[in-house]
Parts: sequence; structure tokens; C-alpha cells
Amino acid sequence: MNAPTEINETHRVQFPQLDVPPRLLLGPGPSNAHPRVLQALTMRQVGHLDPCFIQLMNEIQTLLRYAWQTDNPLTIPVSGAGSAAMEATLANTVEPGDVVLVGVKGYFGHRLVDMAGRYGADVRKMMKPWGQVFSLEEIRENLETHRPAILALVHAETSTGARQPLEDVGELCREYNCLLLVDTVTSLGGVPLFLDRWGVDMAYSCSQKGLGCPPGISPLTLSPRAVEKLHRRKTTVPNWYLDMSLVSKYWGDERTYHHTAPINMSYALREALRLVAEEGLAERWQRHQDNVELLWQGLEDLGLTCHVEKEYRLPTLTTVRIPEGVDGKAVARQLLDEYNIEIAGGLGELGGKVWRIGLMGFNSRRENVVVLLEALDRVLQKHQAK
Amino acid sequence: MNAPTEINETHRVQFPQLDVPPRLLLGPGPSNAHPRVLQALTMRQVGHLDPCFIQLMNEIQTLLRYAWQTDNPLTIPVSGAGSAAMEATLANTVEPGDVVLVGVKGYFGHRLVDMAGRYGADVRKMMKPWGQVFSLEEIRENLETHRPAILALVHAETSTGARQPLEDVGELCREYNCLLLVDTVTSLGGVPLFLDRWGVDMAYSCSQKGLGCPPGISPLTLSPRAVEKLHRRKTTVPNWYLDMSLVSKYWGDERTYHHTAPINMSYALREALRLVAEEGLAERWQRHQDNVELLWQGLEDLGLTCHVEKEYRLPTLTTVRIPEGVDGKAVARQLLDEYNIEIAGGLGELGGKVWRIGLMGFNSRRENVVVLLEALDRVLQKHQAK
Repeated sequence: MNAPTEINETHRVQFPQLDVPPRLLLGPGPSNAHPRVLQALTMRQVGHLDPCFIQLMNEIQTLLRYAWQTDNPLTIPVSGAGSAAMEATLANTVEPGDVVLVGVKGYFGHRLVDMAGRYGADVRKMMKPWGQVFSLEEIRENLETHRPAILALVHAETSTGARQPLEDVGELCREYNCLLLVDTVTSLGGVPLFLDRWGVDMAYSCSQKGLGCPPGISPLTLSPRAVEKLHRRKTTVPNWYLDMSLVSKYWGDERTYHHTAPINMSYALREALRLVAEEGLAERWQRHQDNVELLWQGLEDLGLTCHVEKEYRLPTLTTVRIPEGVDGKAVARQLLDEYNIEIAGGLGELGGKVWRIGLMGFNSRRENVVVLLEALDRVLQKHQAK
Repeated sequence: MNAPTEINETHRVQFPQLDVPPRLLLGPGPSNAHPRVLQALTMRQVGHLDPCFIQLMNEIQTLLRYAWQTDNPLTIPVSGAGSAAMEATLANTVEPGDVVLVGVKGYFGHRLVDMAGRYGADVRKMMKPWGQVFSLEEIRENLETHRPAILALVHAETSTGARQPLEDVGELCREYNCLLLVDTVTSLGGVPLFLDRWGVDMAYSCSQKGLGCPPGISPLTLSPRAVEKLHRRKTTVPNWYLDMSLVSKYWGDERTYHHTAPINMSYALREALRLVAEEGLAERWQRHQDNVELLWQGLEDLGLTCHVEKEYRLPTLTTVRIPEGVDGKAVARQLLDEYNIEIAGGLGELGGKVWRIGLMGFNSRRENVVVLLEALDRVLQKHQAK
């Protein structure tokens, strides 16, 4: 085989066996996966075109439809992070010059603007301070002004913890003949979501938040209206990996090879979705709501203030204002170092101003609320005593 | 929380606990992961910005450099399938109008053509029958004719089992002032590869073949020359998820948030790469070569003919011609159903003409060769007796 013997050994480092601290992940995600999900991850592998894997693909699709409350045939997991699923919505439906109206009230609204621009959209923004949401009236005014082909809204803004009400928005979008694109990254599996009832045409999410699965595989759904826009394209989708005219054949009846699906992550996602179906959506949403209310009360008892008005707070993610004079970063670091609890700081405009606390999926449990509040109390006392 | 009670239960199906047959994956990938890799997959999770995860990212980068024999600082795993890493090379370095010369001698050459076209390249093809490779002289002639900005070659063509020699190609590319892009999807971890010595500027691979890891995370490396072309771009990278000017900051010293890395898949990849470093590249390449030679001899003893000339056969993937009168698909299906062994048929031009047999990573073992040969013999006898 002519194997040359001069192998460069510089980077041949003998690292020790993998070991990581037992973190409790109460930031904006990833959250800890359910133990049954981690167990499913290690199931022996089959090929990605094996008859039993194809059955598993069908099962994932069915359960995703339940979790999202949609009948959309094109409901699949994208082989990548939530941002890949996010990009898939725009890459497939935006044609150069299309007006895309984005509701920007946090970091991920800005990301939608960035992505839409890369696909040649004529991007219009409607803006709100970070932590607030749009009223139906504001949305109508903007649709009237911009007449977009697509309206993009973030249902659960991971950077602010605010929940954008979506009731009746889909109807408005039909009135104005535009598609409704919704970011459900921090809502799927933890926050009431009714895609079909609300007339949502495109949605994406991730695995590692409300679904309680590790990150690396990301739900995507397109309504028949969105698929029709994809089929009407005059230009090829300018992104091969996320081209749903190809990917949908891999997930459809044809099972035409496109790329190799992440086998073990698919096992994990199936198990996570099976847990959602076992628990039931109503019960699961209620559990998230009950635990977050316990958290809000506890934070208030510590003298802390939530950043978002109560009515619009997410049950999955809470932003808390960092008290004046307290070094927010140091507090988070101390929680991690001394208590193995991860919470996060703010992103963008809210950087340095808030902490972000997540109670998602498997992690939305009473004991986690209690340990966090107690640890936070102790750490804050030290910091405020300084 | 105003949880509406009218939940659609149509898709709330109670699927049974996950179970799959114990397949031996001897197709073109995925191959079975090493048990230590599957073990690492289930390690408890940390956040993707946790100090210990950042250390793990560094370790993966170091070990990838060893496996690929490169010092490239920008050496990372992409959060997606090998095709995403493939697309990342072109998305970042192709600007509209750039001449990209692609060596097409199989399915994945065609895929490079498709992708390059989506990024506005002026794509030129040099063609060879499937199963053959390009000579240095042919490459020179084509560089002379087309004067490309990028030459793209598939080192290990997964559709044909042919190994494209790369010695001296990098030098030629420097003479013609073009970047050398190489597909190492079916070579990394199993076939001698010296990126820096061969002057390769961009390479990508996958996790589920020579590295013996599950699919879902995919190595990518860009040389300083390739990074310079990225930095010289006049236009934004038209792909957000794969934009290395952003992703490299997440993997670089800044650790700027871009997307959430696949935590558990990163654990698995680290373990797979640790196994490569433990075994040593020379020993690992030799193991792949020894086992495949045993396979070739056995196939010959069964009266079968390999499709590729011996000198250019890959040690990781072998294409065998289906004997006249034999239903290749039925044979593969019987191997799967009766022996739990997966092999694959041909792709594209070789569809119906060959089987593809992989011996990759953990699966490149003597016992696997023996069981496959014995099972294939028995199945073929039945089919030929018909």
C-alpha cells in the first residue's frame, strides 16, 4: 500500500478517558437529556437505509406532528443544529427579491434577518425592545405596509424569555397572502403550540430544550402552502444540504439517498418524542408552567425581578435582572464551580443585564427549582456582602 | 397559562421501546461504531460553552490534525453530515464566477459539481469512467486548459471504491495558483492521507466510516491559503450555518456563540479519534490493508471480480461485480435478512452492476471478513442454483 513511514506525531496526544462534571443545565440549552434518551443513544447501529431505520424515520415524523400539533406531511428532523433547521425554512422558500418581514425583539430575530439577507430577500424589520412582544394590531400594520411574501416571528425568544402570542396571526397572513414562519426553538415540548390551528406555514426547533434530547438533530416542518412556494421556485435552492426538494425525497416514500442521517441521534430523538407522547402535551405544558411559577415566586422572594411582563413570560426560559452592583458573570461562574449548576448571562442587548434560567424538558422538575434557588441565594449573599 | 384543551391526539401513537437487529454494517457506511465510542456517547452532558467542553473542543481539533496529518489551525468538526462539511468547503471559498474544476469519476464528483454550481461557480468537469482515476498528466492538462481557482478531487470515491493518487497534485496546484479541495469521506482513518505533505488546501470527511463513530458530525479543514481566499471574499458567504468566518470564531480563541455543538456526538468523536491516536496511523492503515487483501482473495476464490484495478483499490471500500444472471439486490437483502450483514448495491452508473463492501474503522477485522465471505458464498450458491 506504499504507506510512507514518516508520520508526523506532533498532534498524536494521548488524552485521558472522557470525564466531565455532573452539571445541572439550567441555562437556555442544552438541557440535560432524559436518562431513557441517553440510553437510546447507545443502541447498536443499523444502516440509514435499513428497513427498520426507515420505519423509525416514520415514527419520528408521526411523533413530531403530535408535538407540534400539525398534519404537515413534510415534518422531519434536519441533520444539524436548530440554526440549520432555521436556515432551511428561508433557503427553500425565499427567492431573490422576495419581501421578508421579520419581527425583531431579540437576538434570534436578528439572526433571521441575517439569514434572509443571504438568500437575497428584501428584508424589512419591525422592531420592539428586547423582552417585549408584538400586538396583533402592530403585525397587521406592518403587513399592510410591507406586503411581505413571508412573515417571520420568534415564538419563544431564547435571548429574552418572551413568548410571542400567535393566535390569529396565521389568519392575518392568509388575508395578506403571505407565509407565516415561526421559531419554536425554545417552545417545542414545553410551551403550548398549535401550528395548524394557528396557521403556521414553517416552523423549526431543536432537540436539546423542551424535548430533552442531546443537541444535533432539529425538527422542521413546512405546510403544503410553503411546499407549494418551494415547488414554484424559478431558481434552484442555493443550498444543497438543506434543499428540501431533495431531502423530502429521502424522508418521503422514495427514500432516495441524500445524506446519511445521524442514526444514534435519531434513536435519541425518537425516545424523547415517545416520552412526550407518553406524558401527553397538556400534562407536559402544565408541568413546565407549574415549575416555572415556583421559580418566579422563589426569585421574587430573593428580591430579584423578572425582565419580562408576567403574561408573556416563557415557561421554559426566564430572564432575571442582575441586581445593581452584582457581577453577573461571577455569580454564574460560581454557581457552576461550586454547585455544578449552569445558568447563562444575557445575549446582545441584554448582555450583562440579565441571567437566563431554563427549565426545559426533563429538567423542568421541582427539585431543580429548589436547588437552584438555594444555591443562587447562597452565592448572591456572598456577592452582595462584598 | 391558558392551555387549550383541544389537543389533536391523531399523531399521539404509542410506539414500542426502541429495538433494532444486531446488524454488521459492511456497506459504504455507516459502519459500526467502536463500543468505547458508543459508551462515550452517553456521558452526562455539559453546556456547549462550559470550560470543560471548550477543552474537549481543543482536544478534538488536535486529534483531527493527527488523523489528517495537517497543522491547519482551522480544523474542526462540522455539526452535520459529511455532505455539510463538503458544502462548507465550496460555500466559503467559491465566489460567483470562480472557475472550479471537478474531477468526476463517480457519484460524489457529480455532487461537487452540483454544489459548486449552486454557489455560482463556473464549473468545469474532467471525466473518467467510474472506477478509474486521473493521472498527474491528465490533471496538468486540465489545469492548463481551465485555469481554475479551485481543483476538486475525490480521494476515496465511495461510489466506485477507487483511490485517487494525490502525491504531487498539490505542487501542480501551486504552479497553477489554485486551491486543492479533496473529499476524504471514505479515507480518513483508514487510508494513508498526508494533507500537508500533499498540499491539500481543503478537505472534509465524515465520522461513520474510517473513524468508527456514529454519523452526525463531520471533520473539515482549511489551509491558511484557503482561509485567505475566504477572507478576501467581496461577498458574504451565502450560507449562514456553514459560514466559517463565523464558525471559526466559535472554534477559535473567541468562542463566540454561533450554534449549539452536538455535545454527545462530540464526546463520541473525541473517543473515536483517541482510538486512532492509541492505535497509531501506520498500524491502522496497515490493518485496513491487511483485512481488505484477505477480502479480495476470498472474493476471488468465490469466482467474483473486483471492479477497480488492484493498484487503485481502496482498503476501506471494495466494489465487486455482480455475476451475470444474479439479482444483486436480492442477494444483499438475503444477507441482511438471514445473516444480519449489510452490504450495498452500486450508485448511479454502477447501480445494479456492483456490490459495495466496506471494511472501515472498528469493522475492519478479520472475523468480519470471514463471516461475510462465508455468508456470501452460501447465499450466492442458492441464487446461482436457481
